[in-house]
Amino acid sequence: MGNLWISNLGELASPLGSGPLGGRRQGEVSRRHGVEVLCRDGRIEAIGSPPEVAAAAAHVGDIERLDAGGGTLVPGFVDPHTHLPWAGDRSAEFAQRLAGRSYLEIAAAGGGILSTVAATRDASESEIRANVTRRLDRMLEWGTTTCEAKSGYGLELEAELKQLRALAAAAADHPVDVVATLLAAHETPAEHRADPERYLDLVCSEIVPAAAAEGLARYCDVFCERGVFSAAQSRRVLEAGLEHGLRPRLHADEFADSHGAELAADLGALTADHLMAVSDRGIEALAASTTIAGLLPGTSFFLKTRLYAPARRLIDAGIPVTLATDCNPGSSHTESLPMIFWLAVLELDMTVEETLTAITLNAACSLELGDEVGTIEAGKQADFVLLEGASLDNLAYHFGVHPITVVVKRGTVAYRKAEAER
Amino acid sequence: MGNLWISNLGELASPLGSGPLGGRRQGEVSRRHGVEVLCRDGRIEAIGSPPEVAAAAAHVGDIERLDAGGGTLVPGFVDPHTHLPWAGDRSAEFAQRLAGRSYLEIAAAGGGILSTVAATRDASESEIRANVTRRLDRMLEWGTTTCEAKSGYGLELEAELKQLRALAAAAADHPVDVVATLLAAHETPAEHRADPERYLDLVCSEIVPAAAAEGLARYCDVFCERGVFSAAQSRRVLEAGLEHGLRPRLHADEFADSHGAELAADLGALTADHLMAVSDRGIEALAASTTIAGLLPGTSFFLKTRLYAPARRLIDAGIPVTLATDCNPGSSHTESLPMIFWLAVLELDMTVEETLTAITLNAACSLELGDEVGTIEAGKQADFVLLEGASLDNLAYHFGVHPITVVVKRGTVAYRKAEAER
Repeated sequence: MGNLWISNLGELASPLGSGPLGGRRQGEVSRRHGVEVLCRDGRIEAIGSPPEVAAAAAHVGDIERLDAGGGTLVPGFVDPHTHLPWAGDRSAEFAQRLAGRSYLEIAAAGGGILSTVAATRDASESEIRANVTRRLDRMLEWGTTTCEAKSGYGLELEAELKQLRALAAAAADHPVDVVATLLAAHETPAEHRADPERYLDLVCSEIVPAAAAEGLARYCDVFCERGVFSAAQSRRVLEAGLEHGLRPRLHADEFADSHGAELAADLGALTADHLMAVSDRGIEALAASTTIAGLLPGTSFFLKTRLYAPARRLIDAGIPVTLATDCNPGSSHTESLPMIFWLAVLELDMTVEETLTAITLNAACSLELGDEVGTIEAGKQADFVLLEGASLDNLAYHFGVHPITVVVKRGTVAYRKAEAER
Repeated sequence: MGNLWISNLGELASPLGSGPLGGRRQGEVSRRHGVEVLCRDGRIEAIGSPPEVAAAAAHVGDIERLDAGGGTLVPGFVDPHTHLPWAGDRSAEFAQRLAGRSYLEIAAAGGGILSTVAATRDASESEIRANVTRRLDRMLEWGTTTCEAKSGYGLELEAELKQLRALAAAAADHPVDVVATLLAAHETPAEHRADPERYLDLVCSEIVPAAAAEGLARYCDVFCERGVFSAAQSRRVLEAGLEHGLRPRLHADEFADSHGAELAADLGALTADHLMAVSDRGIEALAASTTIAGLLPGTSFFLKTRLYAPARRLIDAGIPVTLATDCNPGSSHTESLPMIFWLAVLELDMTVEETLTAITLNAACSLELGDEVGTIEAGKQADFVLLEGASLDNLAYHFGVHPITVVVKRGTVAYRKAEAER
């Protein structure tokens, strides 16, 4: 029903506002004590002292009660960059990489991204849908209530559409809200390696129009990177997307400065993601634009590059920053935004408040959902994470464990950690 | 009752043997498929094909069945270095450190280790016991079935004994087996800062004998580190322990080469732990000794030193390596050995098999329990972790999530992950 009354909170921590950073500097987070929260029909009705909330509750019908046990309430997490719909298993390849086998050796043995493409092309839509559901379940368990998810392992018309249909089918039946992105230009498929432009013709003239016509994607993405797609090629794909109503967001400057940040700023892209190799000019361009910087530290960790994006320089330049899992089978195999939280504070030198803002309000804005989710304010959708511990600080401090007791989506408990059997 | 029959395994992965490395090189792990496991009275009775195990089961009375769902069975994890019995909350201090406040500023404001000492001295034994139980619950949730735990936040006779009594009381009522270590020489308490030798007199002549007489500790530890206790001071403490039957294990060469590794080797210590700053001579000394190298990468991560122990050099020198959480309030606030697993493969460049050996057989040997636990072999105690995924590789590959479905202690299910409410 979406009527919920949350009491006994140790802290309520949230950024405020509906634009990136709420018009503030990154990390201005409201931390309130002694308040309760009332939700009505899935929206936040009131936040206030116990008597204030009791008065508001008198006007609401049946209300579910949630005793927070002294824990900390934060906005539901928003994961703005994932690649959920894929098939196949690359765990053995990963173990080989850990044992010292090179990426080239692995690719030569049939591994790498093209093995995921082969498995995803072979898989049925229902198999991919089941994989997405399993991943969404895991995301919910770790506090995510809204996410973005991309295609990009089909690399041909039908397989890209199959990925997006599987994503939509899984999302239709899941508490986590999913925003879909077409990433047909993730890589050049093997059959077009001799003539990548030919594949881009296909992307622009067939795949983008078909995905848009079927309403399967809201955004269009491209992997702008040395050795993948140049800035000029990327521009072509993103402009094709714009022509069909798909706003751009892109993979930019992950391993080498590929002028992806400048392209993002020039096109008014919603995000420029990765940015480990962004140049000074790229940072200047982002600072002068509305584009949000999307950081994905899970890839630096998982790929053992030990090279992280310059988060402090981006933040100090006034650029709103998001963080995402980048959940994918090759470079960041995790659904956990808390894991990304720990990497952000320990490897990106972000503060607790900056990191919370990155995975709530800023991430919501990067999905054009800043009016709906990303903060705990009256009128917004009632999406929350109830954390262990009497303060937001505990989320950073107690690393490597599962710090979440309850996840609320639209005023309804969507995940509750069960007591151990013992 | 401890009778359990585990079927439908995707893989059974275990080091073999009862000495460190099982007399092999680090990382020789047996990976078997198509086998089942039968436990009787808490011990492993048989491992074999389904008909073989069915034949063995005919001679056992009531047997609980566990369908592994295609998952991977590994030995219960052994965490050989923790500091569980403490009181107080340093999450706010940690958040300040992330925001750029220096360790000295934090210490001047009453933070740092001495704040934990003050809180632990003030706490009642039952409060500390409840904290230990909560931490043991979390360890079990993340696969630990045996651990070591140290005192060291009392730093005076009664408070050290109180910590050890609280630990013993919590352990007596918990499935996780706990081995206790006296770490009275963790730091010089404020009241003895003018004359640290005076405190060491107290440690050697009063605290060590009292802890040994009361049977509260099996081992004696010391923080051998520049600015804490020198190698000569450390030797004095560890020799006092030996006189009272407490074998040595020590904190060695964490921040600076303090000749801790050489001291450990010379005294025949069970472990030399940390070793981020170990010298070439220290490595040579360890290689020529029976001492095990205990690596604690959680501290490098949590303290943002970005300096990890030279795991590959230690392994290549033939030194058995363990990994531990170092669970403590100041430098590694986690109970999760899977989190340490991910740091080991991604930051220490260890392989999947080396890492499994480090947190099972080698850790068991460092606690003189190699005959009892640490491998899955007939006759040993039936302590297991059932992992998601059809292969051990998945434990490394799927990072940041909770990868465990069941934990078995002495043939009994001690933890089972509950289904989400949804």
